[in-house]
Amino acid sequence: MTVTVAVDAGGADLGAAEVAAGAAIAAERGVRVRVFGDARLIGPAAPGVEIVDAPVSIAKVPDPASAVRAAPQSSIVQAARAVAAGDADALVSGGSTGAALAASLFEIKRAHGVYRPALAIPVPVPGHPVTFVDVGANAEVRSEHLVQFAFMGAALAQVVLDVERPRVALLSNGVEPGKGTRTLVDAHRELAHRAGDAPEALEFIGNIEGTDFTSGVADVVVTDGFTGNVALKLMEGVSETLLRAVRTAATSSHRAKVGGLLLRRALGELREELDPEDPGGAYLLGLRGLVVVPHGRFTRRGFSQAILRAARGVEGDVIGRTHAALAAAGALRRPPSGRPSMSDAPDSVTSP
Amino acid sequence: MTVTVAVDAGGADLGAAEVAAGAAIAAERGVRVRVFGDARLIGPAAPGVEIVDAPVSIAKVPDPASAVRAAPQSSIVQAARAVAAGDADALVSGGSTGAALAASLFEIKRAHGVYRPALAIPVPVPGHPVTFVDVGANAEVRSEHLVQFAFMGAALAQVVLDVERPRVALLSNGVEPGKGTRTLVDAHRELAHRAGDAPEALEFIGNIEGTDFTSGVADVVVTDGFTGNVALKLMEGVSETLLRAVRTAATSSHRAKVGGLLLRRALGELREELDPEDPGGAYLLGLRGLVVVPHGRFTRRGFSQAILRAARGVEGDVIGRTHAALAAAGALRRPPSGRPSMSDAPDSVTSP
Repeated sequence: MTVTVAVDAGGADLGAAEVAAGAAIAAERGVRVRVFGDARLIGPAAPGVEIVDAPVSIAKVPDPASAVRAAPQSSIVQAARAVAAGDADALVSGGSTGAALAASLFEIKRAHGVYRPALAIPVPVPGHPVTFVDVGANAEVRSEHLVQFAFMGAALAQVVLDVERPRVALLSNGVEPGKGTRTLVDAHRELAHRAGDAPEALEFIGNIEGTDFTSGVADVVVTDGFTGNVALKLMEGVSETLLRAVRTAATSSHRAKVGGLLLRRALGELREELDPEDPGGAYLLGLRGLVVVPHGRFTRRGFSQAILRAARGVEGDVIGRTHAALAAAGALRRPPSGRPSMSDAPDSVTSP
Repeated sequence: MTVTVAVDAGGADLGAAEVAAGAAIAAERGVRVRVFGDARLIGPAAPGVEIVDAPVSIAKVPDPASAVRAAPQSSIVQAARAVAAGDADALVSGGSTGAALAASLFEIKRAHGVYRPALAIPVPVPGHPVTFVDVGANAEVRSEHLVQFAFMGAALAQVVLDVERPRVALLSNGVEPGKGTRTLVDAHRELAHRAGDAPEALEFIGNIEGTDFTSGVADVVVTDGFTGNVALKLMEGVSETLLRAVRTAATSSHRAKVGGLLLRRALGELREELDPEDPGGAYLLGLRGLVVVPHGRFTRRGFSQAILRAARGVEGDVIGRTHAALAAAGALRRPPSGRPSMSDAPDSVTSP
């Protein structure tokens, strides 16, 4: 089966042509790509890549939820509609997570039985990435949301990041089950119970503290979108500040400069290992199609990784697996008896 | 005036003698120190240091709140009682934050008009430390608690860390005032209002995201004890993992090893700048006396720093300043009209 990925080229910092170049790399590896963006900026299409002219972008607007309704011709809405209509199997949209989330909720819609879509990001950690969910879609959550996030993140890690049986942890201020907010304590109890009914989906290892995020004990770390967003950006800031301080130290004297030059290659390898482009960006989970959001500043390599991982997610049926795991665990949302399911109505979500 | 600091030597990893050695360093600089611990382990007292034999320690017990009541002869309770009785001006207790908090609430008591004590830690950031509050005393908070934390942290930064007019920020998932949980949005509005009435106490700079924690824009960063605890430990974990990866890179080849040797001195200076012993540890704010909690693994240097900074806090009247700022800002807790104030009753607090 050939997978088709719809790509919105509207929000990339390096321009639509860079996104199309990423699409060409992915197409060489056998993925069909439909790129939605300003055709004049992109130029001729590479083999396996189709360009759909969509010059309107809402990637930079302040209120993406309204913009999605007001601009149905925008590149992100067209790309999302292609997935909804079955003309593409997954969506990749660089730049604005808010716009991608709004367009996806509007067109692709939430998966049946899922309370809230969540944003997951594979955080590059030396050794192996840690899938972190939710990093910003839901500032406030209930315990049953966190339980679903755990299964959604685990399915992503299994299919897209090749982790056989993901070790899933809740991020808390202590390892004891009673530590954390009331919501988190409830989620711990529910998840411990649910995980037993879906043993292939994940291994629940309980709470971890912040120190253990990078220690390799967990493959998937679950939290609410407020804590996750703060934590993710904190890690980015601390990493940048520290690596800059090391660079500054390596230019502080003649002796240090020589040392820095000799170390350059080894540190370059570390930087590659920490490369945020490799895992493809952030993933919107809990929708009826897989949506990947590479960072707007990514190069063609990051966009090609996003497309290739989205295709892998389709081939491995991450959506179907998520549903099956939630069903086996008894963690699907049940419609109120005698009334139609409301699970398709988009929640109001905090754009990350 | 000579300041007297009561020091609990019960919980230090390196033993009571190491704490006493730290006390001796502080005493050389003019602080009187009363060390509560096992006198047999400590040996003869240095000039300016008094040893009070208190061999019982509750630093490692699982439930410090009960232990404080059950073991009034323990070193931490005796040291806290010395402050409550006016025999010492401040408390330093290494090892267990939970035991220090429980003993302080029980003996020293909350300051009038303060809702909740909070735990603040000066995080070592290249350039200058950032005072982070609350890092674990209150997993769940109300907006008026966060407002008080801001003034408490600012007074600490002014008196103990020499920041003239601290720039105070709320940690959130976006810089806009409407970002974050409902509690945080309320706190933003209240703090913007209150800060105007106490302009000498602090400058409120609004929300910051995690990326800006280490960028130098804020002197004091305010959050709830759940997010703060997770964030603090995450920063510790990321820093350790990164510096270890740099060390590994510097031994990955002969060439890299030579580079690492040449860089050793410059990186040593960076490590000194990031030394967690320098700011003295964590601070319990909102009590009727200043309480400093050095980390259990600190050496004599860290304990001496904690004692010296506690003494500076007494000389600069951090407690009085906090009260004055809260009063000027209209942020003190008011007793219900016609009923006695309940502000002395200890809340149930989450031990960090």
